[in-house]
Amino acid sequence: MPSISKKGQLMPESPIRKLVPFAEQAEKNGKSIYYLNIGQPDIKTPEIAMQAVKDSNIEVLAYSRSEGSEVYREKISDYYKKHDITVKHDDIIVTTGGSEALLFAFGSIMDVDDEIIIPEPFYANYNGFSRASGIQVVPVISKIEDNFALPPIEAFEKLITPKTKAILICNPGNPTGYLYSKEEIKKLADIVKKHDLFLIADEVYREFTYDGVSHYSIMQEAGLEDHAIMIDSVSKRYSMCGARIGCLVSRNKAVIQTALKFAQARLSPPTLAQIASEAALETPQSYFDDVKQEYTERRNTLITELQKIEGVKVAKPKGAFYCIAELPVKNSDHFAKWLLEDFDVNGETVMVAPAAGFYSTPGEGLNQIRMAYVLNKESLIKAVNIIKEALKIYKD
Amino acid sequence: MPSISKKGQLMPESPIRKLVPFAEQAEKNGKSIYYLNIGQPDIKTPEIAMQAVKDSNIEVLAYSRSEGSEVYREKISDYYKKHDITVKHDDIIVTTGGSEALLFAFGSIMDVDDEIIIPEPFYANYNGFSRASGIQVVPVISKIEDNFALPPIEAFEKLITPKTKAILICNPGNPTGYLYSKEEIKKLADIVKKHDLFLIADEVYREFTYDGVSHYSIMQEAGLEDHAIMIDSVSKRYSMCGARIGCLVSRNKAVIQTALKFAQARLSPPTLAQIASEAALETPQSYFDDVKQEYTERRNTLITELQKIEGVKVAKPKGAFYCIAELPVKNSDHFAKWLLEDFDVNGETVMVAPAAGFYSTPGEGLNQIRMAYVLNKESLIKAVNIIKEALKIYKD
Repeated sequence: MPSISKKGQLMPESPIRKLVPFAEQAEKNGKSIYYLNIGQPDIKTPEIAMQAVKDSNIEVLAYSRSEGSEVYREKISDYYKKHDITVKHDDIIVTTGGSEALLFAFGSIMDVDDEIIIPEPFYANYNGFSRASGIQVVPVISKIEDNFALPPIEAFEKLITPKTKAILICNPGNPTGYLYSKEEIKKLADIVKKHDLFLIADEVYREFTYDGVSHYSIMQEAGLEDHAIMIDSVSKRYSMCGARIGCLVSRNKAVIQTALKFAQARLSPPTLAQIASEAALETPQSYFDDVKQEYTERRNTLITELQKIEGVKVAKPKGAFYCIAELPVKNSDHFAKWLLEDFDVNGETVMVAPAAGFYSTPGEGLNQIRMAYVLNKESLIKAVNIIKEALKIYKD
Repeated sequence: MPSISKKGQLMPESPIRKLVPFAEQAEKNGKSIYYLNIGQPDIKTPEIAMQAVKDSNIEVLAYSRSEGSEVYREKISDYYKKHDITVKHDDIIVTTGGSEALLFAFGSIMDVDDEIIIPEPFYANYNGFSRASGIQVVPVISKIEDNFALPPIEAFEKLITPKTKAILICNPGNPTGYLYSKEEIKKLADIVKKHDLFLIADEVYREFTYDGVSHYSIMQEAGLEDHAIMIDSVSKRYSMCGARIGCLVSRNKAVIQTALKFAQARLSPPTLAQIASEAALETPQSYFDDVKQEYTERRNTLITELQKIEGVKVAKPKGAFYCIAELPVKNSDHFAKWLLEDFDVNGETVMVAPAAGFYSTPGEGLNQIRMAYVLNKESLIKAVNIIKEALKIYKD
């Protein structure tokens, strides 16, 4: 039998999906599950987006331009202006989700065995995309004690080698909920300029910031024109994860021209979803105000409830809708599986994502879990109560 | 300034798109263009597909399963049964177009510098996906004089090295229109079994076969269970290129499990397009009969008209909707550009794809062009007449 690739063997399993078979079995056993493991919000997609698809009158569902239609990219550029980000439509390539934008960025700037420095814990699929691209993730650790703030500059500089091509951040962070300050972005800007690196920022949670603090984009930082590559997506912003529309944004012409070649090879991003995404840009501000209010309350509820549990340490998120908690267990992977298989409170249990999959340093995050506060407050209270009761009897 | 990757520098430009700026300029100059360069059919998408999207009542446009919904995969399996292909739903992974299926296949079975043998001329984006995956295309030439039939077995065997992992065919072929016979598939089966290789077949044009000859899939060939990987797509079948839905099919469990890890990393294929694609499976046979009739007539028209031109050699396609013609010119790239920039018949001109981009051997196909017969017969007659008049005065 011909064998599969080494790359394929090394591709990591998704930490948010590997427990799915246990959850399915638990459901078959009649358990009801609170899903805190996945960033699939329950927030309604703006009606204006879905209506645009229904109103469209398409005779031939044709390819779009590989880089996305000019009209849509002009409108994206207008959207950025409202966020004090000045980019032209031709600094933008529309992609099939933020995922593809990241793959295009990796392909455009890195060759096999090149290195990318990423503060960990980080979005687990960065591991997958790196494996797929044959590049090496070099993690720099951020700590729950510091709320997952940016590690000190020296920690980055120690890791830079001739093979280092980029630093990648997620801001606000999945899975940490950390929001980088303007000062932290400036520090990163200094490093990438000094060492001639790219700075990639995954800013898909831009709107989800709390406590009156606002987001500072790498695209707002002067002097980063050649260095900055922004990854974006409509998935979380408009609760349309299933659209699979994102974009890659850079003022570096060589990056855009190269990414466009990758984009041409796959022909075009999905046409129906682009119609929905273009219309979604007309979503009124009140939608975001409501959503932000809702997430703020959910976050507060989740944090407050978790802090009531003895032995639980939790980083207070300032953005996105994730939170990492340290539990009084040795192996959260085992604990998460046990919750699904062997535990319930009145027939209900919880699915969480073991955090080890969000680190690339072996042994890190073993006692941590990631929770997405994508459920309503009542559900969150019940879910945390289940974790509390579980910890009373769980043995590693 | 940080530099882009070697991989990115080597990514080929799409031969069907690199003339687009000249076409845009020609249109600005008031010329009307017959687009024969791109496989974007003018055939209507089945109404049942578009209506399903309009009728859907989605509150949250959520991720689908990474491998596509079980229901949709069951229905795809039923569709294959009608084509004498027996596969189960879990032999199928739904992808974002056939493009992504090919990327997953490459990633799952090949590492950097591994080799894949492809009869040339071949679908130009195979070059792009190979570059993106860091693998080497090893071309085996097929000839216009033979209608682009399968090269002799010895030609393949001469090229096999320890790094060879797979043979890739497109059947029916883009850009050749060649339809491999059962005997040719059996020859390929013998080679891959003997040398323990994968056989990847891009069968997206399955329905488009002419002259009463029907398609023989690699999935119908007994003994290839571990070797065969089929690439498929709804794009051409239902004239819904913009949906971006395809699939990867294999009975080799290791391939499916590995491809699933790549699929999980990018989360899910587009949800709206899956709704359309699932509904499209209910398209009545009469739709295909009509489409096949239309393409047969278009093919006959195009071939007949081309054969009337002195010095033009044309391979008669047995499937798909492409045709390669050899012209009495030295450089078809230059000729194609000249048609757009400097020539017209009553304000009309033609855009064709220079064929060199469909070869990976330098210097091959320089005097050939690829035409897609995706326009109606009247337009095809006018388009060929323009080429005829152009050849009368064109000088290399």
